[in-house]
Amino acid sequence: MVKFFDYVQEDIPLVEERMREQSNGHHPDLAMALNHLLSAGGKRIRPATCLLVGRMLNADLDRTITLAAAIELLHTATLVHDDVIDGALLRRGNPTLNAQWSPGATILTGDFLFARAAKLAAETESIELMKVFSKTLAVIVNGELTQLFTSKGLVNRDDYFNRIYAKTASLFEISAYTPVYLAGGDESLLENLRTYGYEVGMAFQIMDDILDFTSAQSKLGKPVASDLRQGLVTLPAINYVENNPDDPDMQRILENNRGVDEVTIQRVVAAIRESGAIQAALEEAREFVNRGLAALELMPDYPQKAALEELALFVVNRQL
Amino acid sequence: MVKFFDYVQEDIPLVEERMREQSNGHHPDLAMALNHLLSAGGKRIRPATCLLVGRMLNADLDRTITLAAAIELLHTATLVHDDVIDGALLRRGNPTLNAQWSPGATILTGDFLFARAAKLAAETESIELMKVFSKTLAVIVNGELTQLFTSKGLVNRDDYFNRIYAKTASLFEISAYTPVYLAGGDESLLENLRTYGYEVGMAFQIMDDILDFTSAQSKLGKPVASDLRQGLVTLPAINYVENNPDDPDMQRILENNRGVDEVTIQRVVAAIRESGAIQAALEEAREFVNRGLAALELMPDYPQKAALEELALFVVNRQL
Repeated sequence: MVKFFDYVQEDIPLVEERMREQSNGHHPDLAMALNHLLSAGGKRIRPATCLLVGRMLNADLDRTITLAAAIELLHTATLVHDDVIDGALLRRGNPTLNAQWSPGATILTGDFLFARAAKLAAETESIELMKVFSKTLAVIVNGELTQLFTSKGLVNRDDYFNRIYAKTASLFEISAYTPVYLAGGDESLLENLRTYGYEVGMAFQIMDDILDFTSAQSKLGKPVASDLRQGLVTLPAINYVENNPDDPDMQRILENNRGVDEVTIQRVVAAIRESGAIQAALEEAREFVNRGLAALELMPDYPQKAALEELALFVVNRQL
Repeated sequence: MVKFFDYVQEDIPLVEERMREQSNGHHPDLAMALNHLLSAGGKRIRPATCLLVGRMLNADLDRTITLAAAIELLHTATLVHDDVIDGALLRRGNPTLNAQWSPGATILTGDFLFARAAKLAAETESIELMKVFSKTLAVIVNGELTQLFTSKGLVNRDDYFNRIYAKTASLFEISAYTPVYLAGGDESLLENLRTYGYEVGMAFQIMDDILDFTSAQSKLGKPVASDLRQGLVTLPAINYVENNPDDPDMQRILENNRGVDEVTIQRVVAAIRESGAIQAALEEAREFVNRGLAALELMPDYPQKAALEELALFVVNRQL
């Protein structure tokens, strides 16, 4: 079996190094903040995608590393602002920046990361890439604003898919297709890679939302059903409500977010787990991945396609 | 006498239109926010500089408008974040965005403006310009972070000049020299324009800091000496302290910012006004402008040089 991370495991530390360098020559606390953010880790699945596609297309390694670092830094910057907006104190079980710093310093650190992400993107020397990059930031931020202005507790499948596109799939998409700007390639290759990134990214976020219901708190680093506790309705809950529109516990949660007792929450989580809602969400995630795999099929026979296939399957098979 | 705004008065509304368009296709509240920010106005002296230099070098007008809009939007984005960090409710006498919106919505609006500024910059199709642009954002943010982490009440001339470079002169600088990337021009032209923008920008901020002491509250839209009230020491206060190191009122302000009574503040403002501190700061602003004018002299004899001269003199002669 192909281990897709094997293809890129030597390059991931180079991406992290490129990210870390971005605080050089600036206020020393920025280096500290960047170190803190990078050591919190994460799977680096976006850089891995970018590096894999870069290798597949024979893109210059140094420019691919710069591109992957730009994308991951953009992602990191949006998370920093997310956490300050939500007042979140933990992410992946680690203290957030704003758990330790003032809101002002945290906002400015996010801004600094935007600046450095833009600088790295410019260093790829591709204007097309710069345009896509700035557009993606607008999509992400527009998605967050829409979420902020939308009533909590609203159950709407379209809103959900728009939200997870803005939040997650948009970045997977650019991780997958922007290496074409470095290596060259025709429009159909670009479109197939865009589809691959989009579909895998959508599946990735659905899986995250499933794991929020099925994983133990100790593995999540946050309470089970943390989204639902905040009145944010994700696919498992949407599926459940569609089949159980009159569940009084669920109604109470949707109407009184943040004010519902633990017993009710636990009862709803158990009901969602026991219903077919999780399984149905998993099926939807697999359909997204299958469409991503179909797009891969349409591409020329690069040897790295097997690794991209494996990456897509990893997304729907991963457990916390 | 040449009226420098006459040269560009028809183009400034086009720059504002280009800025306003940036919310199209996004959440409707973003259009409202952008309208609010743009109607608050300001002198648009950065776009005027950019348009004047663009005309002087015969740059394509449409690309120059895009560039000027990108710079002004970048400036606007940093102000939006500044105001949320300071909790400021008024700017130029108008309510700030965060006076009306939640901090979260305000932070995200700033992020959206960064995204659109980057998009406009990319639309100029110049990679050099993108690099300069992202570097400038890093300089601005690094300056604000440094200010946030520096003890209030510290009197240091170098810190002051670094701060006003990051805050103001860096944007004047790129307004003046980046049209070269659109129109072409040799390294010496670029360097002379950079010097012109830098020196005029430094003078502009010193004048702002002088007017904070000399103008009536009704014209400032905020209390007189608002910086000093927050423990932020600007050039008039630095000059005053250097000549009056033992003034007990001033010592109290520097040691107890935000906690000093109005009578003490008014006494210090009167003392600064009556000393030579304001005059000395004005002299320094004029020296900056003179260096800017000297850089203009080194450039070829474009007819628009007279307008750029006038713009530089306007900066040190303006009154609120």
